[in-house]
This record gives sequence, structure tokens and C-alpha cells, in this order.
Amino acid sequence: MPEFLQLLPPEAARTLLFSNLPDPKIKYEKIETASSLGRVIAEDIFAPHSLPEFLRSTVDGYAVRARDTFGASDSMPAYLTLVDEIPMGSAPSQRIDSGQCGLIHTGGMLPPGADAVVMLENTQVVLGGDQPIPGSEIEIFRAVADGENVIQIGEDVKSGSVILKGGSRIRPAEVGGLMALGITQLSVAVKPKVGLISSGDEIIDPFKQTQPGQVRDINAYTLASLVTKTGGEPILYGIVPDIRADLESTARRALNECDVVVITAGSSASTRDMTADVIASLGAPGVLVHGINTRPGKPTILGVCNGKAVIGLPGNPVSALVNGYLFVMPIIEKLLVETPRPRPVVAAKLTVNLPSQAGREDWIPVKLISQSGKAQTYHAEPIFGKSNLIFTLTSADGLLRIPPDVTGYGAGETAEVVLF
Amino acid sequence: MPEFLQLLPPEAARTLLFSNLPDPKIKYEKIETASSLGRVIAEDIFAPHSLPEFLRSTVDGYAVRARDTFGASDSMPAYLTLVDEIPMGSAPSQRIDSGQCGLIHTGGMLPPGADAVVMLENTQVVLGGDQPIPGSEIEIFRAVADGENVIQIGEDVKSGSVILKGGSRIRPAEVGGLMALGITQLSVAVKPKVGLISSGDEIIDPFKQTQPGQVRDINAYTLASLVTKTGGEPILYGIVPDIRADLESTARRALNECDVVVITAGSSASTRDMTADVIASLGAPGVLVHGINTRPGKPTILGVCNGKAVIGLPGNPVSALVNGYLFVMPIIEKLLVETPRPRPVVAAKLTVNLPSQAGREDWIPVKLISQSGKAQTYHAEPIFGKSNLIFTLTSADGLLRIPPDVTGYGAGETAEVVLF
Repeated sequence: MPEFLQLLPPEAARTLLFSNLPDPKIKYEKIETASSLGRVIAEDIFAPHSLPEFLRSTVDGYAVRARDTFGASDSMPAYLTLVDEIPMGSAPSQRIDSGQCGLIHTGGMLPPGADAVVMLENTQVVLGGDQPIPGSEIEIFRAVADGENVIQIGEDVKSGSVILKGGSRIRPAEVGGLMALGITQLSVAVKPKVGLISSGDEIIDPFKQTQPGQVRDINAYTLASLVTKTGGEPILYGIVPDIRADLESTARRALNECDVVVITAGSSASTRDMTADVIASLGAPGVLVHGINTRPGKPTILGVCNGKAVIGLPGNPVSALVNGYLFVMPIIEKLLVETPRPRPVVAAKLTVNLPSQAGREDWIPVKLISQSGKAQTYHAEPIFGKSNLIFTLTSADGLLRIPPDVTGYGAGETAEVVLF
Repeated sequence: MPEFLQLLPPEAARTLLFSNLPDPKIKYEKIETASSLGRVIAEDIFAPHSLPEFLRSTVDGYAVRARDTFGASDSMPAYLTLVDEIPMGSAPSQRIDSGQCGLIHTGGMLPPGADAVVMLENTQVVLGGDQPIPGSEIEIFRAVADGENVIQIGEDVKSGSVILKGGSRIRPAEVGGLMALGITQLSVAVKPKVGLISSGDEIIDPFKQTQPGQVRDINAYTLASLVTKTGGEPILYGIVPDIRADLESTARRALNECDVVVITAGSSASTRDMTADVIASLGAPGVLVHGINTRPGKPTILGVCNGKAVIGLPGNPVSALVNGYLFVMPIIEKLLVETPRPRPVVAAKLTVNLPSQAGREDWIPVKLISQSGKAQTYHAEPIFGKSNLIFTLTSADGLLRIPPDVTGYGAGETAEVVLF
């Protein structure tokens, strides 16, 4: 197995792959902001106007000229005449002059002349009954500074400034920020098309009944779900028998129609070699990495053909999915020109010793057990089993990483677990 | 503001809310497994057959009777006669008797009689040429134990056992496990309908131009995105002016049509009080919590009316979204009867002091800055700004939590940041 003589560490393998991929040309499409959750913004978005567009009160109280309150205290209140109650949702009709104030609600627009708001609890109506009505005299027990309890025009965002950068993934907060500015449509990156090919004479369509020696295709479906989750569009090319010409023609068609091609090889060495041969034949530079120092996933093949990534994943379903996370996911993110955010990682204390090999990166399915009493403290319990058992992954909460420069962890040590 | 006299801690508030909600009656629907990502499994799923269904080799090599190899070593090899090459994807035609072996590929089916596989690298063809063909004599340099390099029938999953529990959220691995067993359709919980009502005279439809004093609705859209992300179905009831009869009739209609109702109140105290009155009038027991010891989100109202949760969130968009995460998300998960998994949390070192008040839970938007050289080490840099500025959230990677029993964190201390 000559391919395994030079096992690259996963990080170096990714770097080599990415350095052979051209800068992606983003394809845009315009969609409704209200249904843009999870999409990636194509280009910087600028504020069409300031937010807020007017001085807004942050409290219930009285809009005043701050200098009219200077020195006010419980023993020496200031006295102001109420001239108006400012209605919500429209411009105040009356100006506040010296010695005057206006009743204002949280979120209301400051009247011209006013520059601060005194909170209701620091005031009292002294003339004109209990309820403040125009003409009431208002006692002010506390001084306010210019701008106090007020959101300035443009304090949230200034007209013309960049509000969201190209490459940002839309979360609920981004949807809200866009709607706040009346940006009801936006340009997002078109979902990269990821062609998925399953190969292996033993693999059959999951909708069919198995015969002795046959297993149903798992990889096309786990990888399609991973692609969807990452923001790509999976395109299934079905199952190709272990015949080189068939695999090559299907792969060539996928390469033509998609932005990325992923072949899950049959599990034997000969079919893996065939996958490498096919990738080499599809275009330059062809196979870049054949064998990665990671477990599971050693037989992973990384290639670039005519400017597109072509990945050969091991047939074993756990290996294929874990290496989908390690290699296919970052390729999709690169094609989306996404600015990465921190990955969801939980620190957890190991319950047992986990040996590893120096230089190799291990990914071990673990169950996370919440420790009672202490929020967000977890124990990580490895799920043992041969690495080709898909149900070891369904019982796991995440994958514990043993980095290449660590020769394993002892029970009680804390390691990082990536939620998947 | 009498509602704020008794501020409940968020955890106690959630407990009180949940203890007043009846056990949800799950509504099922049948969907395609291939497009079930993110849905919640309605009931336990059993394996219709074992996986694998036959003894499978985990390596390329020779299927043997283990006892024929006992004692074999480099100096004392065992000699076996090759009788067959086992084709991938079909049952071996030939039985392996004592003194015999069969060439087998990774994933291949063991022939009757064989109980272990010797790896190719521990063998050599000694008679009949370089290539192993039927009749070749094979030298075995290493003994194998019974079952070595073999996956047993049912080792991944046993026929009739529970493979996925009701309440599990479908991830890529679950899709794969189901397809492996030919379960191409499954029952999932119907998405809970969450009715969203925005109130406030100052609030307008984001598709309209603002006039002085008006702001566009943010909350309906941030919360709709949050509901979608959590697995619910948002239903927008639009913007209701600050007129009690209007709010009550819209809320009553939403309560009739949905599983949960969320009202984002206008921001002034009077409209918040109106929201509480309306919730109280919709059905028993009505308002359970009015005022929560959290920042942002103090004016949050939790209620239950006729067995359904009715939540009043503050009008301030940051407060509404943060409290949507704290209260609306768990309600949806409860309605889905979801078994919770660990939330994505990152531990990060604070760059500045963050004071808090004993008893209060604070949620502070932070940017996470990856520390070069060390993977998964982050500094958390708070994004300061008044709590009603939506763009403080869009610039954040997550929300840093200051628990109620902590009176703040010092610079350099490590705190947990929830990614959102």
C-alpha cells in the first residue's frame, strides 16, 4: 500500500488542498431576508440610514433640557412645567424650552429642544393633580447629564457604515438587523453543489432489500445531510460498481455539473486505488494527498481537478462522515467565502485513559454526561466499537479530539469535544 | 412597577412555567428519512434486522479457521490452500474446511467454515505464482484468534433492539443509521406552531418607510428565525397597536391556532402592563412570572393559558432575542419532547472586568478572539452598548453568561460563552 508511506497530518493536508484551489468566484442570488437564516452574505451591506433615526428615550420619564436639572436633588428639586405628552410612533408637536418638560415613554422620540430624560421614579407631580397633564408642575429630584437616558441618532448604526460583512452567516440577530433597516431582500452566496458518488460492488440502494453479502448505502445520505447542514446543495449520483470506466464517467459528469465531487470508495484497497486513479485522470493537478495521519480516515484522498476539489473518502461510514467534517465541510465554507466563527466545542473530563499515537490525530465518539449541580461541566465517556459501526456515532454527543502532538489522554484529563 | 418587586431567577422561572404546562401530546407526521435532518424522532425505532447481517471482514486478507493458524509465526508459518476469491456483494460459494483459506476483501462476507481473517501483510503466496489463485499455497506468519478482523452479525446493532430513542434530534449520523437498516421513512414530531405578535404604536412593518418616531419591527423576524432554528413553525400575526381589545383578540386567535404564543410588548411600562393583563384574561392560570432577575430581560412575562405557554417579551430587540433563547427555545424543545443534548458552549478568557449584581443572571454579547498557536483557546471581548441596540448582537459570536451566584468576573477569568 504505497499510498500510506507518507501520511500527512490533517492540518497540513487541508493547507495543501486549499493552496491548490483557486479563489472561489462567488455566485450571488437575491433572496428574502425573512427566510435567509443560515445563508452566507455575498458582499458587504451598508446602512441605508442611521439607526435610530431620531433621539429615543430609553426610559419612561420626562424629556428635559439637562441644564434645567443641574443641581437638582431630594432637598433642592428643580421645577419644570409639563407642556406635552409625546405620543408613541409620531413626531412630538411641541418644542421643549427652558423650564419645560414633556412626558415621554420608553422608545419615544425626544422633542426638539430636549436633550435628556429624567426617569419617572426621580420625579413627582406637584401641581395639577396626581396624573401629569399639560400644565402640571413636575418636581425633579435628580440631575441628568446631556444625553442621559437617550439613544443618539446612529448610536446603533450610522448611515452608510458597513452593517454586515460579506462572508457572515445569517443568524436570527442578522435577520433582525436587516429588517430594522428595511433591507427586506439581500444577496447571498449560491449554495455550492456537492456531487456525491458511492462506489463498491457490495453497496445497494437503501430502498432495496439486501441479499447476502450486500449492505445499504449509508455514506451518500450522511454526507448529503452534512452538506445540507453546512449550506451546500448535495447532488446524489447513485452507486457505481467497481468498474473503472463507470466510476470515471460518473465522476467526470459530477465534476462538470458540481463545484465539489466526493467519492466514497469501496472499502478494499483495490477499490481505493481505483478511486485515486480516477481522481488523477479527471484533471490537473489530480491527487494531492493519499493517506492522512488521522483515525478514522487514514485512506482519505484529497485532490484538485481543473480548479475543483475532488475528495475520496473511505467506504467505512464512520470514517467517511468524520472525514466529511474534517475536509468536505471546510471546502463548502471556502466556496461560500464564509468568515469562520468558533466551532461548537465542549471541554469535558475523560472517564478512562485514551492512548493515541504521536503524530496522529484521533477522533473518538463520546457521550457527554452532565455533572449534576454544576452547569456545563461534562464527563466524556468514549463509545468503543470498531470504527466502521455507524451506531457508535448515533450514540455519541460529539467527537473527542486527540491532537497529533499528544500521545493520548489519561482519565481525569480535560479534552475538547466537537459537537456534530 | 409592582411586577418588579419579586424578580425570579431564570432557572426558577422556567421551572415554575414548566410545572404549569401539561405533558405535551406529541403529534406525529411521517417524512422521508433522507430529508429528516434537524427533526425530532417521535417514538423509539427498532432494528428490523441485525447490522451487519453477515460476518464481515474488516481487512483485506484470507478468511481462515482460526485454529489452523494457532502457533504460526515468521519462523514457523502455517500453510493453507486457497480455494476461492470471495466476490464483493454476494455470498461465497465455497465452504472453508480445515487447511483451506479464501481470499477476502475489506467488507466482504466470510464463507461458511471461516471464523477469522489473516491480514494480507502477514501472508505470502508460496505456490502457484505471485498472485493468489485457487490452488495457491498461502504461508501464514501470524496466528489469529477466533473472530479476529471480523465484524460479528449484529455487532453494530441487533435485530429488534432500540436503535434511536423517541426525542432524539436527527443529525447526519442518524440519517445514515436509518438508511443502513432500510428505514427510508420515519415518524417525527410535527413542528410546534409558535404565534408571534408584535405590539407598540411606534412599530411598523419592515417593508414600509419609517416616519419620524417610528421604528421597524425587528422582534417578529428575530424570533421567527429562532423558532425555525429550534424546529418550530413561526406564524406571524403582525403588529397590533397599543389598544387592549385589539391585542386581546389577536392573542386569543393566536392561542386558538398555535401551540405557543409570544407577544413582544411595546417598550413602555404601560404597554407591558397591558400585555400582562391580556395574558391574564386569556385563560387559567394566566400570568405566572412577571419580572425575571436577568439582564437583559427583566420585564419578561411567563404565562400559561388553557395549557399553552404565553410569553410576553420586552419590546427591546436584544432583550426579546436573548429571552427568546432562555424561554421560547426550551418551550419548543419541550413540545417536541426532545431529549436535550449539550448546548454549544465555548470557554473563553475575559479581556476586561465584568461586574454583575448578586442574584442576577447576565448575558453579555462578546466577540471571541482565537489565540494564535493554540487551537480552541479564545479571549472574550465584550461588546458594549445600550442593551437595545440590535447591532451589538450581530457583532457578537456568542453570549457570555454571568451566573446568578457570581458577582462578576475579573479580567483573565474564564467564563462560558453560548454560541447562538
